[in-house]
Amino acid sequence: MIKAGIIGASGYTGGELLRLLVNHPDVKPELATSRSLAGKPVAGTHRHLEGFLDLRYENPDPEEIRARCDVVFVAVPHGTAMNYVPELLDDNTKVIDLSADYRLETSVFEKVYDLNHADPRTAVYGLVELHPEAAKEQLVANPGCFPTGAILSAAPLAAAGLIDMAIFDSKTGISGAGISPSGTSHYPNIAENIIPYKLTAHRHRAEIVQELNRLDGNLRNISFTPHVIPTIRGILTTAHIFTKEPLSTGDVQALYEEFYRDKPFVRLPGVPSLTAVRGSNFCDIGFEADAENNRVVVLSAIDNLVKGASGQAIQNMNLMFGLEETRGLWIPATAP
Amino acid sequence: MIKAGIIGASGYTGGELLRLLVNHPDVKPELATSRSLAGKPVAGTHRHLEGFLDLRYENPDPEEIRARCDVVFVAVPHGTAMNYVPELLDDNTKVIDLSADYRLETSVFEKVYDLNHADPRTAVYGLVELHPEAAKEQLVANPGCFPTGAILSAAPLAAAGLIDMAIFDSKTGISGAGISPSGTSHYPNIAENIIPYKLTAHRHRAEIVQELNRLDGNLRNISFTPHVIPTIRGILTTAHIFTKEPLSTGDVQALYEEFYRDKPFVRLPGVPSLTAVRGSNFCDIGFEADAENNRVVVLSAIDNLVKGASGQAIQNMNLMFGLEETRGLWIPATAP
Amino acid sequence: MIKAGIIGASGYTGGELLRLLVNHPDVKPELATSRSLAGKPVAGTHRHLEGFLDLRYENPDPEEIRARCDVVFVAVPHGTAMNYVPELLDDNTKVIDLSADYRLETSVFEKVYDLNHADPRTAVYGLVELHPEAAKEQLVANPGCFPTGAILSAAPLAAAGLIDMAIFDSKTGISGAGISPSGTSHYPNIAENIIPYKLTAHRHRAEIVQELNRLDGNLRNISFTPHVIPTIRGILTTAHIFTKEPLSTGDVQALYEEFYRDKPFVRLPGVPSLTAVRGSNFCDIGFEADAENNRVVVLSAIDNLVKGASGQAIQNMNLMFGLEETRGLWIPATAP
Amino acid sequence: MIKAGIIGASGYTGGELLRLLVNHPDVKPELATSRSLAGKPVAGTHRHLEGFLDLRYENPDPEEIRARCDVVFVAVPHGTAMNYVPELLDDNTKVIDLSADYRLETSVFEKVYDLNHADPRTAVYGLVELHPEAAKEQLVANPGCFPTGAILSAAPLAAAGLIDMAIFDSKTGISGAGISPSGTSHYPNIAENIIPYKLTAHRHRAEIVQELNRLDGNLRNISFTPHVIPTIRGILTTAHIFTKEPLSTGDVQALYEEFYRDKPFVRLPGVPSLTAVRGSNFCDIGFEADAENNRVVVLSAIDNLVKGASGQAIQNMNLMFGLEETRGLWIPATAP
Repeated sequence: MIKAGIIGASGYTGGELLRLLVNHPDVKPELATSRSLAGKPVAGTHRHLEGFLDLRYENPDPEEIRARCDVVFVAVPHGTAMNYVPELLDDNTKVIDLSADYRLETSVFEKVYDLNHADPRTAVYGLVELHPEAAKEQLVANPGCFPTGAILSAAPLAAAGLIDMAIFDSKTGISGAGISPSGTSHYPNIAENIIPYKLTAHRHRAEIVQELNRLDGNLRNISFTPHVIPTIRGILTTAHIFTKEPLSTGDVQALYEEFYRDKPFVRLPGVPSLTAVRGSNFCDIGFEADAENNRVVVLSAIDNLVKGASGQAIQNMNLMFGLEETRGLWIPATAP
Repeated sequence: MIKAGIIGASGYTGGELLRLLVNHPDVKPELATSRSLAGKPVAGTHRHLEGFLDLRYENPDPEEIRARCDVVFVAVPHGTAMNYVPELLDDNTKVIDLSADYRLETSVFEKVYDLNHADPRTAVYGLVELHPEAAKEQLVANPGCFPTGAILSAAPLAAAGLIDMAIFDSKTGISGAGISPSGTSHYPNIAENIIPYKLTAHRHRAEIVQELNRLDGNLRNISFTPHVIPTIRGILTTAHIFTKEPLSTGDVQALYEEFYRDKPFVRLPGVPSLTAVRGSNFCDIGFEADAENNRVVVLSAIDNLVKGASGQAIQNMNLMFGLEETRGLWIPATAP
Repeated sequence: MIKAGIIGASGYTGGELLRLLVNHPDVKPELATSRSLAGKPVAGTHRHLEGFLDLRYENPDPEEIRARCDVVFVAVPHGTAMNYVPELLDDNTKVIDLSADYRLETSVFEKVYDLNHADPRTAVYGLVELHPEAAKEQLVANPGCFPTGAILSAAPLAAAGLIDMAIFDSKTGISGAGISPSGTSHYPNIAENIIPYKLTAHRHRAEIVQELNRLDGNLRNISFTPHVIPTIRGILTTAHIFTKEPLSTGDVQALYEEFYRDKPFVRLPGVPSLTAVRGSNFCDIGFEADAENNRVVVLSAIDNLVKGASGQAIQNMNLMFGLEETRGLWIPATAP
Repeated sequence: MIKAGIIGASGYTGGELLRLLVNHPDVKPELATSRSLAGKPVAGTHRHLEGFLDLRYENPDPEEIRARCDVVFVAVPHGTAMNYVPELLDDNTKVIDLSADYRLETSVFEKVYDLNHADPRTAVYGLVELHPEAAKEQLVANPGCFPTGAILSAAPLAAAGLIDMAIFDSKTGISGAGISPSGTSHYPNIAENIIPYKLTAHRHRAEIVQELNRLDGNLRNISFTPHVIPTIRGILTTAHIFTKEPLSTGDVQALYEEFYRDKPFVRLPGVPSLTAVRGSNFCDIGFEADAENNRVVVLSAIDNLVKGASGQAIQNMNLMFGLEETRGLWIPATAP
C-alpha cells in the first residue's frame, strides 16, 4: 500500500483527497496535518468521513513526514507551499502540490503573485491529459481549477493552430473559495445571485496562457473572466473561441474526438452539465460552431474539487506510481 | 413628516427599515447610525438603496438623536439596546426596540438571557394583532421573528382555551442570523441542507410562552425547535397543536376567521407559502385537523425581516402616530 | 385613473404587471384575461396578490376590452400577440406588447421566428433609455429580457463608434422560462447547476443586433450565448467588448456617465449584483478595462421580470400617458 | 457475479441503483427496463453513467427477466409493482420491491392506498437494522423514504417501551417526488420556499405506525407531517418524542448506542446534517432531551435516494446473497 500524507488536510481539498483515498485500493491515508487542529480527529471536522478513518490531525516535522509517507499532497495556500515542498521531496517521497507555487515559470509566478519564490525550480504542470510525462516526476504541480476546465476546452483547437482569439467566461461553485466563511460565501449574498470578480486580472489566466502557448506558440489574445454562481461544486467554462477559418460543428467534433481518444476522464456528451460530473473526476466537453462569426462555443464542465483539484492530484499520483490512471477514481457522479 | 432615526442601521433589519421607509408617505429617514461606518454613505453598504437616500452613517449622541427624531428604531443586539433606550425616550421621541431587551418580564429576561437588565421597566409587546394598546405607548418592544409566526399560529386556539399542548417546529431563512458571515451562513454548509439548532432551549421560546399564557393562563406544554433552511427570507412555523377536544378543519377555520377579522396583515389562504409573503408584512396562516390524534396542524408563513422585524416595527410606528396600520406597508410580496 | 387590461394575465409577466399596478397611483387594473382560468379569482393563482385585487380572470372579446381599457398589456407568446394587437388598438386604447411580435423589422422577424407575420407594421422598440419617442405612440413593442440587459451594457460604446466586436455571455434566472414546469425548471436539474442553451442561435440576438446597429451602423461582430443559473429572478450579462482603440476604465466611466445622465433607472454602482435589482426596475452597470487585449468587460444586472419585462412595460406606459417615467416604479430592490 | 435487473430504470431510484451497482464488486447490471425508452442507451438519460455501462433500455417479458437475472429490483410506482412481482419471483430469482405494494399488511395497504391488492402476501419489511430476517427471503419490501428516517429515529425508545407520543416533522429534498417536472419541483416554486403537504394523512404514516408497533404494541399517538425543502437530496426528520418518564440526554445516548451497536450504517455524530450523508447509505442520528416537557428531540438524516431507497435495496440484496451488509455501499458522502 502506498502511504499518503496530506499537508493542510482540514480544508475542502484535504477533505476531498481523503474522501477519495479512503476507497483507493492501493493507498492508505497515513497522516493528515493541521497546525490549529493537531490532536483532533479528522472526522470531527470532515464529518462525512466518520467511520472511514481513525486519523487525528498531526503537526510532524518534515523528516517524519518523509519517513512515513510515500507520497505527500500539499494542500496549503500559494506562497506557503514553496516552504514545505523542498523539505518533503526526496528519492523515496513524491510530492504533489495543489497550490499555485510550481505551476508557472518562476519569473511569471513572481510577477503574477507578486512574491519572491523561495524554491525556484521547474515542475511538470500536472494536467494529465496534456502532460503524461508527470509519470516520471518526483514533484508535480497540480493545475488550478479554472485552468483545468479552460485549457481542456481549448486544447484541441490550440494544438491544431486554429485559434485566433479566445475568451473564457467561467462560472464556479463557491467551494472554490474555500472552507472559511466570507462575504462572498454568505448565503444571502450568493444565493439568487451571481458574482463576477477579477474581471480582467485573475491569476489563473497565466496558467491558461502558458499551457495554450505550449500547444500554439503564436497564440496571443486570451481573455478570462470568472464568476461565482450559487452552487457548491462545479465549474462551467464557456469558451468563445474565434478561429482562423470557419469550422462546422462536425469539424470540431472530429478534432476533439481524435485529441481526447484514450483519455478516460474526458467525455464528449453534448452540452455538458455540472450535475453529470458532481463528485467525479470527469471533464465533460460540448461545442457548437457559430459559422456567421467564425466562433466556436466550447463548454467544459468539471467538479472543481475533483478534476479541478483533489481528483486530478490522485490521477497524477496514479501515474507517478505506475498505476492505471483511473485507479480509485472511476466513480460516477452523484446525480441528481 | 415624521422624522425617523435608526440606531444600528447597517444590518439587515436596518436595511429593511430603510427599504420600507423611503417609500412611506409620512416618514422621512432622518438619521442612520453605525459606529464603524460613520461618515460612509448608507447606500454604499445597502446597495439596493442607491438613488433612494443620501444619508451617511453617523454616530451622534443621544441628545442629538432625540432632537432630530420623532421616532427611533433601535436595531442593535440584545443586551446593547437597554443602554440606548432610556437615553432616547422622551415626550417627543418614541422608541421602537427591535432587540429582545424589553419583550419579556424583567425577571424572565434576566434568566433567559443570563444578564442583569440595566433598565428594568414594562413595555408593550408589539405584536400588533394582539396588542393594539401599543398605540398609546412611547416605547414598544418589537417581537422576535420566531415568536411572531408561532404566536399568531396558535393565538385563536389559545384564546379559546382549547390547547392541551403545542409543539412549534420552525424553519427560518438564514437572513435571521444577520449580515455577518458565519459557519451556518457559509453557502456550502447551508445549501442543500437544513440545520436544526437550539433544539430545546432557544430563547424565543420564552416569548411564545409569555404571550400564549396571556391568552390562556393554564397553558403549560409548549415546545419550540427551530431549523435553518436554505432560503434567504421567511419563516414557516409548523405548529402541532393537541387540543382538549376534537376539532374539525371547519371549526378551526371559523375560529381563525373570527379572531383575525379586521387584521389586515393576517390572511388565511390555505396552505401558506414563503413565496407569497416574501418582502411583505403578511402573516399567512393555514391549518388542517387530524381528528385521529386530536391534533391540529397550523402553518404560518412570514417574512422574518418584515413581519418578523422591520415591517412589524413600522406597523407599530403607524399605530403610535395615529396612522392607518397599513400605511406604507401595503405592498404585495415579490413573487416568484 | 388609467384603466389597464392584461391579455394573458396568468403567467409571470402578468403577475408582475399586477404586482406593480396595484400600487401605481394613476392606474386601476381593470381586467385580466385567461382563457383557461376565466371565472377564477386572479389571486387564486397569483397568491401574493390576495387582498390587493378582487379581479377574476375573464375572456372578453376585443371590442369589450377596447371599451373598458385605456391601455392593454399583451402578455401572450410570440406568434399569438400579432393576432390580438390589431383588434385592440384604436384611438382611445394604447397597446404595449410584451411578446416578440413587433420588436423586429418584419422581414427579420419572419426569418428569425420562421413565421409569417399576420400584422406587418412598424412599432417603436420600447427600450425607453434609447427610444423616448415611445411617448408618442399608440403601440409599443416591449423589449426582450436578454436584449434589455445586453443593449444597455453596450449602448454607450456603440454610440461612440468604439466597438470592434462584442460577445454577450448572459446568465438568467429560470423565471424567464415561464410559469409552466419543464425539464429545465425541474429543481434537481437546475439547482447546483448552470444550463447553457441556444449557444449560437438564440432569437434575442436579432434584437441586440438591430438596436446596436441603430447606434453604429457598421457594427458586425455580435455574439450572444445565454445560460440559465439557479436563481428565480435576474439577468447578469457579461459583455466582452473589444474596442477599436485602447480605453481605460476611467474613459469608459466618463462615457457611461454622460450617456446615462438623466436616465433614472440606469445606475453605475461598480460591479453590479442581482440582489441589488431584485424586484426593481433598475439596470445596474459596471465595467473594467482590460488594456492588454483592447477589451472592456461590461456587466449589467436587471430583474428579468421587471426591467426585462413588466416594469419596462409600465415605464413605457408612463411615457405614453405623459406621466413621469418613474411613476409607480420607484421601488428599491427586495434585498437581501 | 450476481446478475441484476431493474424494472423501471429510467427514474431516480433506477439511476441510483445503477450508480451504486456499477461499482459493486459482486454485481453486474444485466438489464434495465423502460417501456417508453426501450432501445435507447441508459447513459443517454442517466448521463452521469456515460462510460460506466453499455446497457440499453429493454422491455423483455417476465420469463426472460427471470432467466437473465439473479435479482430484480422493482422501481415502478405503487399499484404497478404488484403486477410484476409474482411473475418475477422464482427459486432462482430474488425480488426487491422499492414500491409500497408489499410494505404493509394487505388489509392496511388496501385501505391506505384505496386499491385492491392483486397479489396479497406477506413480505419482510426490509429495514435492515430492524429486520435481519430479510436475509432468508426471496421477496423483500424496501421501506419508504420517510419511514426509514422516522422509524430509525424512534426505534430504540419504542423498543424500550418509553414512548408516550411521537410527532415526526420531516423535511425532504425534492428528488423524492421523482424525475418528472411538476408544480412542486418547478424551481421558482420551491427555491427560497418550503412546502408542507399532506399535513395529517401522508401514506407513509402507516409504515411508521406498523413498524413502531412491532417494537411497542401499545404505541398509539403517532403523528407525521412532511415538508419539501429546497434541496435535491436528503431527509431530515425532527422527531418530537414525549416519553413516559423524564430522560436525560445521556440516558438517550446510552440507549441508542446499545441499540445500534453493530449497525454499520447508523452513526450517532451529534446533530446530523444532510451534507454528511449526501450520496451515502448512512442514517445519522442525534438527540437532545427537553427535561421540562418530558420531550426528547431526535433528529435523523438520510439521503432519500440511498438509505431511503436504492442504497437500502442493495443493503437488502447483500444480506439476501450472503454478502457483507456494507459490500459496495461503504462510500462516504459527497461533502460539501
